[in-house]
Amino acid sequence: MPFSFHLDATSGVARAGHIVTDHGEFPTPVFMPVGTQATVKGVTIEGIIDTGARILLGNTYHLCMRPGPELIERAGGLHKFMGWDGAILTDSGGYQVFSLASLRRLGDDGVRFRSHVDGSLHMFTPESVMNAQARIGADIIMSFDYFGGIPCPRPDAEHSVALTSAWARRGRDVSGARFNRNGWEQVVFGIVQGAEYEDLRRRSVEEIVALDFPGYAIGGLAVGEDKQLTRDITEYTAAMLPREKPRYLMGMGTPLDLVEGVARGIDMFDCVLPTRNGRTGTVFTRDGRIVLKNAAHTEDYTPLDAACGCTACTRHTRAYLRHLFMTGEMLGPMLASQHNLYFFQDVMREARRAIMEDGFAAWRAAFVDRYERGETARIRDHEDRQRRIS
Amino acid sequence: MPFSFHLDATSGVARAGHIVTDHGEFPTPVFMPVGTQATVKGVTIEGIIDTGARILLGNTYHLCMRPGPELIERAGGLHKFMGWDGAILTDSGGYQVFSLASLRRLGDDGVRFRSHVDGSLHMFTPESVMNAQARIGADIIMSFDYFGGIPCPRPDAEHSVALTSAWARRGRDVSGARFNRNGWEQVVFGIVQGAEYEDLRRRSVEEIVALDFPGYAIGGLAVGEDKQLTRDITEYTAAMLPREKPRYLMGMGTPLDLVEGVARGIDMFDCVLPTRNGRTGTVFTRDGRIVLKNAAHTEDYTPLDAACGCTACTRHTRAYLRHLFMTGEMLGPMLASQHNLYFFQDVMREARRAIMEDGFAAWRAAFVDRYERGETARIRDHEDRQRRIS
Repeated sequence: MPFSFHLDATSGVARAGHIVTDHGEFPTPVFMPVGTQATVKGVTIEGIIDTGARILLGNTYHLCMRPGPELIERAGGLHKFMGWDGAILTDSGGYQVFSLASLRRLGDDGVRFRSHVDGSLHMFTPESVMNAQARIGADIIMSFDYFGGIPCPRPDAEHSVALTSAWARRGRDVSGARFNRNGWEQVVFGIVQGAEYEDLRRRSVEEIVALDFPGYAIGGLAVGEDKQLTRDITEYTAAMLPREKPRYLMGMGTPLDLVEGVARGIDMFDCVLPTRNGRTGTVFTRDGRIVLKNAAHTEDYTPLDAACGCTACTRHTRAYLRHLFMTGEMLGPMLASQHNLYFFQDVMREARRAIMEDGFAAWRAAFVDRYERGETARIRDHEDRQRRIS
Repeated sequence: MPFSFHLDATSGVARAGHIVTDHGEFPTPVFMPVGTQATVKGVTIEGIIDTGARILLGNTYHLCMRPGPELIERAGGLHKFMGWDGAILTDSGGYQVFSLASLRRLGDDGVRFRSHVDGSLHMFTPESVMNAQARIGADIIMSFDYFGGIPCPRPDAEHSVALTSAWARRGRDVSGARFNRNGWEQVVFGIVQGAEYEDLRRRSVEEIVALDFPGYAIGGLAVGEDKQLTRDITEYTAAMLPREKPRYLMGMGTPLDLVEGVARGIDMFDCVLPTRNGRTGTVFTRDGRIVLKNAAHTEDYTPLDAACGCTACTRHTRAYLRHLFMTGEMLGPMLASQHNLYFFQDVMREARRAIMEDGFAAWRAAFVDRYERGETARIRDHEDRQRRIS
């Protein structure tokens, strides 16, 4: 089946749809678990399937360092290499080059850098990144982009927009915006930059949309900027993007970030938060975050989230999960990651259902209210406990 | 159902049977995965069930340190606390006191020691260990024993036998050899000591069997002694034990150790090897051990063991598993542990089938031959590779 996006319903600005790929279809809004190095950290493929996820994200930078796109291609592509039958999106590696690699040197042609693994020299160009992703075999591959952070001096933001547009064209010119060289279709998404400048975001949207990609991403956010700024930029940028193409907000975010993104017309999200926080014992629930090591959970024989259907919630208690983290047992990070991924999928499932019923605004208000009240109550409870101890 | 052991068939000295407990029944010979701190390291409950295991071992010493038997009892017992419906055996903690704790002081009454976790002072007595295991709620609980290592000076071995017999009687006198205080039956096994002295093993067997326990363990082995010595001691000691009671060889061993134990009339085994070796990337197969990090597996797109039905073997390749270990990904230890546990269950399943068909001797010869030939070929291959590199 050729790649396609279908808009099934809207509720205000929020959109419910579905995306079809040669590795299956999945509903939107969608949260994509991050499988950096050909594995979602601490979760088996069966575990991922159990959360309901049908698309994963892979990191091109990491996969280029180890085991390398040539090996992945010889293994039959990333799907076969990691044993995953669902869809895969790979990022362009641009973000990782700037956050992980050392001795970066930016030129018009691309970026030279040293690997964070062994210090070896590499160069990423719009063409090399496109070829690497083609070999890796993702269903959705991202243009190579450049971003300057937020806040960003205006000349740097203008340069980032110009370079990102030039690189998007060069990347697209390698094989087009849709191609098939492994037996399944691969499509290219364009990325919008422009930092915190609405007019630059508009210029970027116009230049990227002119290249006619099957989908568009909003880049340069989720880099530590103020939450309200993220939401404002997301709101006006999403509104500039074509209605009939999927919109992907890269690297975002918390459960509230997802809900606020959906409220602004975003269809796709990815973030390491569920697994990264899960590994250190912070879990997300309908009543906000829980830090499992807190003494409050020592003899709490209730599940993490009574409405959750994951194995951590249906089989185990908070007391048991706390014990696993207190004793440093691997099963703690495994179960907390599994739960968080399941919960993020639940948030998307509930949001989609609310959109289909044209009740998104009410659902969003209730979700945000319960989440924030839960966090506030837990913080108050924790402070009371500390006061009693001291 | 009251605890019972049924001998279904023999083939030479090897025995096939089954054990019935209030938490289900399971066939013997049986390998019990070790769930030291209320978790089999790196494996979910679903994962354990998938291997076919129906009984786990818990470590009383670790559970007494964290979270403590009182908390486990309040949680509804270890089964409920860890979410496991099958049977559980807990050891007496004696081995861990001697291998992990510091500042041990042995007396006739028991052992004083400092916790390896926080340095706190504790004392284990035959009575306290029985009460702790009763609270933890295991289906099979072990008498408190004392062993002096192998080789052991004869006077120390005599002392170990005398102390172990006295402690076994004191432990049994707490609630008898079978009791029910949590809503399910708990039975006590006696432990035979005597180091490398056949006459002391006989003395120990006579004194312990006189106390009439529902099952008997051979203790003091798997502590680094020569393999042939282990096998000899196992052989003559097992032969001294009553035919109608299960025989448990504590802390053993490799796949070959299991097969050799079964050949000598052993019914039950436990060992940390599948998970401990799995965590560092050594997996067991019908063709011997594989060290996943070896370069030989870089592009080996075959499963660990073609005859294995575990998820690591049915979904993934050696090349992928090697990649996980080379990149330090948690999924590597998870899948390798899962495979090893599955393989150990397979060895027991195959051994039992061979005994039921009265073909154990031929099966054992073929298993040992293939396993050893595999290891030899792999070592030769590895040496060739090293030679070509240097």
